[in-house]
Amino acid sequence: MTTHRFDLHPWGIGWSCVQNSGWEERGQAHRESVFSLSNGHIGWRGTLDEGDPSAAAGSYLNGVFEEHPMPYAEDGYGYPEHGQTVMHVPDGKVIRLIVDDEPFDIRTGALVEHRQHLDLRTGILHREATWTSPAGRTVTVASQRLVSFTHRSIAAVRYEVTAGDAAVEVTLLSEIVADEPLPEVHSDPRVMDALREPFEPVSHHGAGGRATLVQRTRRSRIAVAVAADHLVTASQANAPEPHTEVTADLARTTVRARLELGESIGLVKCVGHEWSPALDDVALRDRAEAAVESAIEIGWDGLVDEQRQYLDEFWGRVDVRIEGAERLQQSARFSLFQVLQSAARAEVRSIPGKGLTGVGYEGHTFWDAEAFVLPVLTYTAPHAARDALLWRHSTLDHARNRAEQLHLAGAAFPWRTLDGRECSGYWPAGTVAFHVNADIAAAVVRYARATGDEDFEREKGVEILVETARLWCALGRWDDDGAFHIDGVTGPDEYSALVDDNFFTNLMAQRNLRAAADASRRHRDQASALGVAPEEIARWTTTADAMAFPWDAARGIPEQSAGFNAKERWDFEGTRDDQYPLQSHFPYFDLYRKQVVKQADLVLALQIAPDAFTPEQTARAFAYYDELTVRDSSLSASVQSTVAARVGQLDLAMDYFAEAATIDLDDLQDDVDEGLHVAAHAGVWNALVCGFGGMRDDGEMLRFAPRVAPPMTAFSFGMLVRGRTLRVEVQRDAVTYRLADGAALGIRHFDEEITLEAGQPRRLGIPALPDPGPRPSQPRGREPRRADAET
Amino acid sequence: MTTHRFDLHPWGIGWSCVQNSGWEERGQAHRESVFSLSNGHIGWRGTLDEGDPSAAAGSYLNGVFEEHPMPYAEDGYGYPEHGQTVMHVPDGKVIRLIVDDEPFDIRTGALVEHRQHLDLRTGILHREATWTSPAGRTVTVASQRLVSFTHRSIAAVRYEVTAGDAAVEVTLLSEIVADEPLPEVHSDPRVMDALREPFEPVSHHGAGGRATLVQRTRRSRIAVAVAADHLVTASQANAPEPHTEVTADLARTTVRARLELGESIGLVKCVGHEWSPALDDVALRDRAEAAVESAIEIGWDGLVDEQRQYLDEFWGRVDVRIEGAERLQQSARFSLFQVLQSAARAEVRSIPGKGLTGVGYEGHTFWDAEAFVLPVLTYTAPHAARDALLWRHSTLDHARNRAEQLHLAGAAFPWRTLDGRECSGYWPAGTVAFHVNADIAAAVVRYARATGDEDFEREKGVEILVETARLWCALGRWDDDGAFHIDGVTGPDEYSALVDDNFFTNLMAQRNLRAAADASRRHRDQASALGVAPEEIARWTTTADAMAFPWDAARGIPEQSAGFNAKERWDFEGTRDDQYPLQSHFPYFDLYRKQVVKQADLVLALQIAPDAFTPEQTARAFAYYDELTVRDSSLSASVQSTVAARVGQLDLAMDYFAEAATIDLDDLQDDVDEGLHVAAHAGVWNALVCGFGGMRDDGEMLRFAPRVAPPMTAFSFGMLVRGRTLRVEVQRDAVTYRLADGAALGIRHFDEEITLEAGQPRRLGIPALPDPGPRPSQPRGREPRRADAET
Repeated sequence: MTTHRFDLHPWGIGWSCVQNSGWEERGQAHRESVFSLSNGHIGWRGTLDEGDPSAAAGSYLNGVFEEHPMPYAEDGYGYPEHGQTVMHVPDGKVIRLIVDDEPFDIRTGALVEHRQHLDLRTGILHREATWTSPAGRTVTVASQRLVSFTHRSIAAVRYEVTAGDAAVEVTLLSEIVADEPLPEVHSDPRVMDALREPFEPVSHHGAGGRATLVQRTRRSRIAVAVAADHLVTASQANAPEPHTEVTADLARTTVRARLELGESIGLVKCVGHEWSPALDDVALRDRAEAAVESAIEIGWDGLVDEQRQYLDEFWGRVDVRIEGAERLQQSARFSLFQVLQSAARAEVRSIPGKGLTGVGYEGHTFWDAEAFVLPVLTYTAPHAARDALLWRHSTLDHARNRAEQLHLAGAAFPWRTLDGRECSGYWPAGTVAFHVNADIAAAVVRYARATGDEDFEREKGVEILVETARLWCALGRWDDDGAFHIDGVTGPDEYSALVDDNFFTNLMAQRNLRAAADASRRHRDQASALGVAPEEIARWTTTADAMAFPWDAARGIPEQSAGFNAKERWDFEGTRDDQYPLQSHFPYFDLYRKQVVKQADLVLALQIAPDAFTPEQTARAFAYYDELTVRDSSLSASVQSTVAARVGQLDLAMDYFAEAATIDLDDLQDDVDEGLHVAAHAGVWNALVCGFGGMRDDGEMLRFAPRVAPPMTAFSFGMLVRGRTLRVEVQRDAVTYRLADGAALGIRHFDEEITLEAGQPRRLGIPALPDPGPRPSQPRGREPRRADAET
Repeated sequence: MTTHRFDLHPWGIGWSCVQNSGWEERGQAHRESVFSLSNGHIGWRGTLDEGDPSAAAGSYLNGVFEEHPMPYAEDGYGYPEHGQTVMHVPDGKVIRLIVDDEPFDIRTGALVEHRQHLDLRTGILHREATWTSPAGRTVTVASQRLVSFTHRSIAAVRYEVTAGDAAVEVTLLSEIVADEPLPEVHSDPRVMDALREPFEPVSHHGAGGRATLVQRTRRSRIAVAVAADHLVTASQANAPEPHTEVTADLARTTVRARLELGESIGLVKCVGHEWSPALDDVALRDRAEAAVESAIEIGWDGLVDEQRQYLDEFWGRVDVRIEGAERLQQSARFSLFQVLQSAARAEVRSIPGKGLTGVGYEGHTFWDAEAFVLPVLTYTAPHAARDALLWRHSTLDHARNRAEQLHLAGAAFPWRTLDGRECSGYWPAGTVAFHVNADIAAAVVRYARATGDEDFEREKGVEILVETARLWCALGRWDDDGAFHIDGVTGPDEYSALVDDNFFTNLMAQRNLRAAADASRRHRDQASALGVAPEEIARWTTTADAMAFPWDAARGIPEQSAGFNAKERWDFEGTRDDQYPLQSHFPYFDLYRKQVVKQADLVLALQIAPDAFTPEQTARAFAYYDELTVRDSSLSASVQSTVAARVGQLDLAMDYFAEAATIDLDDLQDDVDEGLHVAAHAGVWNALVCGFGGMRDDGEMLRFAPRVAPPMTAFSFGMLVRGRTLRVEVQRDAVTYRLADGAALGIRHFDEEITLEAGQPRRLGIPALPDPGPRPSQPRGREPRRADAET
């Protein structure tokens, strides 16, 4: 059983240690990830203000990366030559403290008390520390930190130190630190060599309380400006003046004061972040400094107020509430907050797998941005979903080039990337995981349908749909019986590869083709401009109609891929607990040739396209694949929870939900040091809303079929639907639908169509749950970890 | 049409240029490979004596390699961490010449005439050059070079310079040069960094005409000693004395003389080569110097005589003669000579894919050593076949470790290696090409049967057969119908991968299992010592009996792998000539999912196991797969020739034979710069003997069914069978079998069993060729290149 690492709180995540327990270095990297702040443009890991000790100091800017050569033991055609890795940009969050000439360092002296608390309602990370120096002087430090949702390039710190037991001399050194070392993001030393000191200085400036560093990456030639300014606050009269020294790699603003007992001195530090792939030193610097000037004018309290207003608006519409299970309540809100943080102000930049919380996956974006994160953003922060799709659209030329290189047509979006170019160095689970294209297309369709944003669909969406549809036509082949097959690809499950007719891929491709045909008919001018003739539209439709779907007739279930269910079953009984994740203990070839599923694949098809299956097929298929799924990926538990709930296996659904909700807080995969799993956090919302809420958006009308599962006694969630706010409040026997605003909205409640009017809640009964049959079983030792559901 | 690059000669390969044509730098690397000399222990590329200009100076010692890290873009379980690359050892073949203070350099002054000739009967590389220095002095240089078959560690040069038109001062600088640069054997700069200056000096010695360098590789810790001694010959009285200077990296023996017109001075240089993985500096040096001392005592003429005797003996037994097609005659002998050179004195070391003729494939050994080269050696130089199998046996511990790492049983021999450890960095065509194990087992069975070497079988063979049989049992699986399948492997065809039930693999595995059972029954003590119980033997037999073989019932032919014949056919019509080899122009995933064959796979099964198929099945299968085979590998044409001949497609067989015979001499694959394709040379013998000769060794009795194909009018070959020499002389209408010695030998001539007595030739008629039906076709643009058959 996992020990909970964080304090329980419905609206926050806290961690504290008191004198006797001392400092836990072991968990520090994990806490830095959990306490990360981000607005999708800037990411600040939850490091201590004074910089040391730290596991990974990380400040990130979305889109700032360095290139490196890609090493191969044996080369092959079409292998990407260059990789991309997110970089530590100059770090403006550091404020060092010197007490009577001794540096404040929690590893020395005595740490009387230390608390960190991330407040999800305000978006502020609080820290308080009481420390006695080796020389016996005690001070209390209090800091708050935010990365602004309302000022995209601004992050800010309020820092205050108070003399605790006697008069002390204190010096505050507020810094911008360049060249903070990068953790080992790649096992190849040559790659790491290329990423060592990735920035070269361009210019540096400083005077009074102000400082700016401008730097540029050596290979990718991306310029970054980080500027800071300070307000000094003091409890005594005559606050001391700051002064600043700057070199190419370090800006240091110093404030000195003598504090009598109980007196305090503080700083408000506003840090502005700008970057550009085309260097204009002066323009970049001007933008960063202007942002800082504006933030300083607003002041700390103003920034905090704006942050609070932004989040009040967010939570007011889409808060998730879970009653009867405090830890689930806490983690569900934490997860939704992380999804927001990853994308709120990304603004036509990617949503990396780890957000801006660490260097895991080298900062790359994968298919799960569209398949997991965008469904949540579409209904909770649709502007952010739009921006993410605009980013994909902006990379279409790279995707077209890649398709051409592969002798295909249309666009082949990359498996992993920072700027849109393929960075996957292992093609059996990279290049050929073509489903990423259909996942992007599905996100376009979902966004357009959920928001009614016709401008987007016409100006950008059509092009994505058309180019991805073209890819499928070029990739597949017709058999003699008139069926269309997609051979030799890899689906979501990474323990299978190079399979024929992956059901998920074919289903998503079918919908992609139909959506392209549909959108091209509705936006004839845009389609024509893309060279779409009526024959091509007809071809997409006939191809979609002819799509092959592998079927296990004996079991009456869809098959993950052609022949999958006839493969040898993995020896689960002979696999020891310490041999998971399997990929770290067995060769790929053995995983690939056997029935063993890393992560929901066919079950993800059941979740995304429930209309393609009867309820009986869904239940049988879920039970069959649950026996084979080892969940060696953070992307699986939430999907299994969703489908378990839909087939009425509520107890199992809750077990999976509890696991999904704590993957990062309890570090179930032992890799949170490198950053949070944003898509897994999105999965928590998906499981709550689509699983327990029974929400389906596969038709024109949203459908709900909610059911409460113990230990929760009730839950509710909000969604933005075509500009209106819909709240769904679920209790054991009834559900209340509240439309806050806007025109009437038709939805389905179980099999009943109803129309909601703004301000007129509808309370409807929940029908009895049919007997779902026996609980599906899992591979030995891979049962879901229920522990965390109970509090 | 290819221009023939070498002079036509039945017993040699010559190349010459005269004044007007000048020096062809372009073809130099190719010529260096073609003129390589080797005895399987030492390899000397056919460089010019004076060292410069050279493409790759290369002296090699079989087994001397350096380790390097293996780079991966993305890591995986079981990927080899270290690679191995053959190294340039200190090069003792260099003799520089200075004429009146001007260095002899064919790029300066005027090259009046230059000839090189490799004499296949004597094993000597001749060179003659007449050169006028920029200052107008003309000299003639004549050298002969040999790598001794009778003195394993000795290579020698006889070098003579004659004053051509006036008196000259000449200086001969005979060197041992360390750290000659390695060509780029790997695309990863980090790997090349690890291979730069791989040797560190250990000691150096020199006096009079003698010199020795001892060095050691930095990572693999292999010590090498190269020693030289010289005899000076002069046409005038009082030959000058040599003197020697040595530094850690260079030994230089100098001889100076003034030559009057027509006078000459010469050197005989004997170079000794020793190495050891465990350094004992003194012992190593002693062995190298003792070898040199002995060679000097024998003298140049003695070494030449021994070389000639060795080759007389070889050619006397197993010469291949082709009448009516001079170029085929030349290349057939060249090919057999190269097979001999690759292995004659390897003595429990590997036979690399390129022999010791270049750095191609990093000097690695592959499955083709056993599948292509050993069949030839077994019948032409059986001691060398034995040694090669002893080497595989000596690597069994590495193979057992690899099997354990892969969670298998028995032994998993490496796909590519120098010392027995897996060095393949691309597992879909490496690790999972498990057929290498059955290829080794088949070579054991063939060798034991052909030679009657029961000691070998008992002491070494049984263990190889048992451990490989164990691998197959662990690798495959039983289905519900009682069939045994081997899933997810790669067969010989590298344009398919991760297939189920590769027919070739399963057939070879079946025979491996049966051979293990058979050998274990005959050698009970050895089997018991390996832990083989009767139940295990029974298991091998039942497993072999249950082996699954994919079959295309509609076409009545075996299928390359399960489902292969239902895959999409490659768009051969849409593939341009300049898009071959396909692997350089298309991504693997696209090759893997389509019907396109890089190299004989199912057709290799037809060649190796003709008893498994009816003649009709063979003909149909050959025709079907010939349409799909693009021959992007040097291992294909000979196999296609063999099977074409067996099914009576003699014209096509000759076309393939002509191509196979000139792959290296005409550099058809544009890669001979990096060394010769030893297995392709072996294929020439296989095609002649097993194809046109119709030789089959799949039963207890050898079978022949020879047929002459135009343009050849007759051919003959010799074989060693259980210690006896059998010669087969084929004419258009009859064949004569001659047993030279030993007890009577039963063979089959077509369907007739006959008994041969020593000294009593049997002449038998050749039955009329049944109509073989239409000539099979090939992919557009990939028809065999007939041109070279005609002279």
